[in-house]
Amino acid sequence: MSFPIKALFVDGHYLTNFNKKGDQGGGMENVLRAFLEPKSVAIVGVSRTPNRPGYLIIRNLKEFGFEGEIYPVNPQGGEILGFKVFKSIHELPENIELAVSMVSADDSIEFLESCAAKGIRNVLLVSGGFSESGEIGAKRQREVVRFARRKGIRLMGPNAVGPVNTFNNLVLHFYPLEYLKKGGVSFIAQSGQFCCPVMEFGTSSMHLGVSKSIDLGNCCDIDEAEVMEYLEEDPNTRVIAIYMESIHAGKRFLEVSKRVTQKKPVVVMKTGRTEDGSKTAASHTGAIAVDDTIFDLALRQAGIIRAKDLDEFLELAKIFDCPQIPKGERLAVVTYSGGIGAMVADACGEYGLKLAELSKDTVEKIRPTLPSSAKVSNPLDSFAVGVPLDINNVYRIPLEAFMEDPNVDMVLLCFMVNRLVWRMDFDHILKDLKRIQTKPVVAWVVGDADLVRECTERLEKSEIPVFGSPERATRALGALWKYHFSVLKKAKFE
Amino acid sequence: MSFPIKALFVDGHYLTNFNKKGDQGGGMENVLRAFLEPKSVAIVGVSRTPNRPGYLIIRNLKEFGFEGEIYPVNPQGGEILGFKVFKSIHELPENIELAVSMVSADDSIEFLESCAAKGIRNVLLVSGGFSESGEIGAKRQREVVRFARRKGIRLMGPNAVGPVNTFNNLVLHFYPLEYLKKGGVSFIAQSGQFCCPVMEFGTSSMHLGVSKSIDLGNCCDIDEAEVMEYLEEDPNTRVIAIYMESIHAGKRFLEVSKRVTQKKPVVVMKTGRTEDGSKTAASHTGAIAVDDTIFDLALRQAGIIRAKDLDEFLELAKIFDCPQIPKGERLAVVTYSGGIGAMVADACGEYGLKLAELSKDTVEKIRPTLPSSAKVSNPLDSFAVGVPLDINNVYRIPLEAFMEDPNVDMVLLCFMVNRLVWRMDFDHILKDLKRIQTKPVVAWVVGDADLVRECTERLEKSEIPVFGSPERATRALGALWKYHFSVLKKAKFE
Repeated sequence: MSFPIKALFVDGHYLTNFNKKGDQGGGMENVLRAFLEPKSVAIVGVSRTPNRPGYLIIRNLKEFGFEGEIYPVNPQGGEILGFKVFKSIHELPENIELAVSMVSADDSIEFLESCAAKGIRNVLLVSGGFSESGEIGAKRQREVVRFARRKGIRLMGPNAVGPVNTFNNLVLHFYPLEYLKKGGVSFIAQSGQFCCPVMEFGTSSMHLGVSKSIDLGNCCDIDEAEVMEYLEEDPNTRVIAIYMESIHAGKRFLEVSKRVTQKKPVVVMKTGRTEDGSKTAASHTGAIAVDDTIFDLALRQAGIIRAKDLDEFLELAKIFDCPQIPKGERLAVVTYSGGIGAMVADACGEYGLKLAELSKDTVEKIRPTLPSSAKVSNPLDSFAVGVPLDINNVYRIPLEAFMEDPNVDMVLLCFMVNRLVWRMDFDHILKDLKRIQTKPVVAWVVGDADLVRECTERLEKSEIPVFGSPERATRALGALWKYHFSVLKKAKFE
Repeated sequence: MSFPIKALFVDGHYLTNFNKKGDQGGGMENVLRAFLEPKSVAIVGVSRTPNRPGYLIIRNLKEFGFEGEIYPVNPQGGEILGFKVFKSIHELPENIELAVSMVSADDSIEFLESCAAKGIRNVLLVSGGFSESGEIGAKRQREVVRFARRKGIRLMGPNAVGPVNTFNNLVLHFYPLEYLKKGGVSFIAQSGQFCCPVMEFGTSSMHLGVSKSIDLGNCCDIDEAEVMEYLEEDPNTRVIAIYMESIHAGKRFLEVSKRVTQKKPVVVMKTGRTEDGSKTAASHTGAIAVDDTIFDLALRQAGIIRAKDLDEFLELAKIFDCPQIPKGERLAVVTYSGGIGAMVADACGEYGLKLAELSKDTVEKIRPTLPSSAKVSNPLDSFAVGVPLDINNVYRIPLEAFMEDPNVDMVLLCFMVNRLVWRMDFDHILKDLKRIQTKPVVAWVVGDADLVRECTERLEKSEIPVFGSPERATRALGALWKYHFSVLKKAKFE
């Protein structure tokens, strides 16, 4: 069945979009490069008052050690955090690649005029007061877009916190980040606050590794499709995770997605799934809601993976940052409890995986690690007949055997940790894994919270992604397999 | 439609069950009292080797400060952790209420004989080597049950870690618990390891408050129904959470459940939902699987709430420990982000809640806390038009208004925390809540992991249950409402 793609042209900002491929000229550099890898950034409307957005944005650039030039602008001049403050855009040196506006929405046209005069062609509008705040703001936004277009200026935002790039330490937003982990996940969001505390939570608590984060705010010019095209070619992006409340330029978004999803997984979380959610989302960004069933179908046709909630969104982003590609759906599990094994088995049924039938070789290798009366099975219940002979080998030896077993495609390790007795020696368990790892290996850790945290950190340091429950680990692996299977399948038939 | 209850008599141990009401004599004290509130406990097969199960069980009793008498037994005599060790059961004082066997399965009959001779009528069999380990073990289990029955001894286990009661500090199991929070959740489990690390994880990381935990192991005599009857009358149990792999004495379990669920919520997690899960569970406890669709229907008819995975199981247990009862399904939300508000709205649609329409009074009370251009809406987006005037009042004033608003039945607070800027002052926010709280209030906290943990602890100390995501918080509240609604509805029509 072919899907009537036109139905998705329901976006209120459609008229103002001019980022179709043709407009840029074929082969032109993606404009996102200027926003994510600028050699120089001017920040207009900075503040010396600690904890004001105009102060925090400079602090973030400094603290994270941005590699480009930083030019704060404020009519008062002086210094901020060791940087010279320019009194006006006019006074700035030539060839500034990107200007960030923290000035009031009312002064936007004037600000853009100065940028145009200075030859600045890329502008991030941080301030709110546009389409998200009613009809007057929406009118203001249309004017700004028209003006920028006439002057050849590309806009990100407005009402956007700004981008992050962990590969040049660009943290161009005013949310005071305390922690950020580098990795292969690139976020695109339409919600100002989404890229800040949620991303910080993801990196600090879930050990999610971020490559880029781009908050498009009201999305008046640069939109998801254009960002995706940049991320498609970005060698540091392994997975694209998009939080959206409405779809902009739907046809092009789906066209681009269809191509990108063949190279990299794209995970989308979109609110407005239910009536209440749809109303709430609309009141937030002033966007028009789209029928969720149609949206869902369109996403699937474009090869996009849709997450139903925040947990799944972050967890899928995390699993797709895993460099190993599963060749099949057969999962091998080491656990400390038959009950947990049964939960994983249930989750396999639910999320499209199968429990691997271990090869004879694997069974023979594992047998000596267990008491003689214990069965070697999958899930492997290491405590089935009492405390195992050597708790660390009970994990290490199966893990190594699974890497060579042609019947195993991926591995889940369930650890019970306890300071008194079963304190895992991960150095021993993971000793040779790095050298021989060819399959995805994930983990779940249970026990006292402090120790769980400690062990999780240790595992994550060895690039074993840890998940919050056995079922969530299985769900993530199921999604990983499904994505690679569908890409493989398409490749075969095309 | 009436359900053919007989179909549930599929339990392999059925012949050995003798805990039907009649057998005990009407009005007799529930035998679980001896297992959960014993005045004296003999532990047979203790060990002086640290970290051996026979050592750890004494350590737990001592460390947690069990209020009853403790009598370790080992042929070598001497002392363990300051307790005199008796050389045999024969040497013990009279009137021991409960004996715990850590002796080998082979010696069980001999052990029971000594108990009978000493007049001990309640026995916990910790050791494995019974029905979970094949036909020889199953035969041994049948012999033990027959013998105990003849001697009038009641059995818990075998292959069970033993019970916990936080109200007399009884921690009668060998898993070295480090942390346990007291509360209203009572667990019943059929999996040895389930009551240990999972419970510890629940209490230490999810702030779940435990009242009792009873691991029934192979469930050869005392079963879920009997435990439920005890917990039904237990004033310190607010919710019963059961982890099961198979159903024992199905008809009676459902009869008892039907009655108990009218007084207290009962949450069940049962593995074997899928084919793989069912096979795995069967190999674990040697129990026969029951068709999951039939099981599911039977649970619903008995008023039991079924959790589909470990997260939901622990989260439902947590929300049902909430003392406030919602009078309707209307949720009021304070959030720092429109995107998060939209997620909660979606979750309301999914989990059977509605967003409350705030009363005029409430709107008037909230308005002064926001910048003049901000809308008072639900979800209340406190950052909609920029940083709020006073971040703490943005939470406190709505929270107090919601308590008086007849249109609001429950509250979800979504906090973004940051050490630099939005450090919440929970003392201020929750100042008067305790005095005026009539409705369930739950929270979600996001930001840097360390600060999230710190704030979560502060909120939990004020008895605001914190959940891991906005959707999980909403799901929990939805289940809370659904339970109370169904009980209220039944009460009306009966």
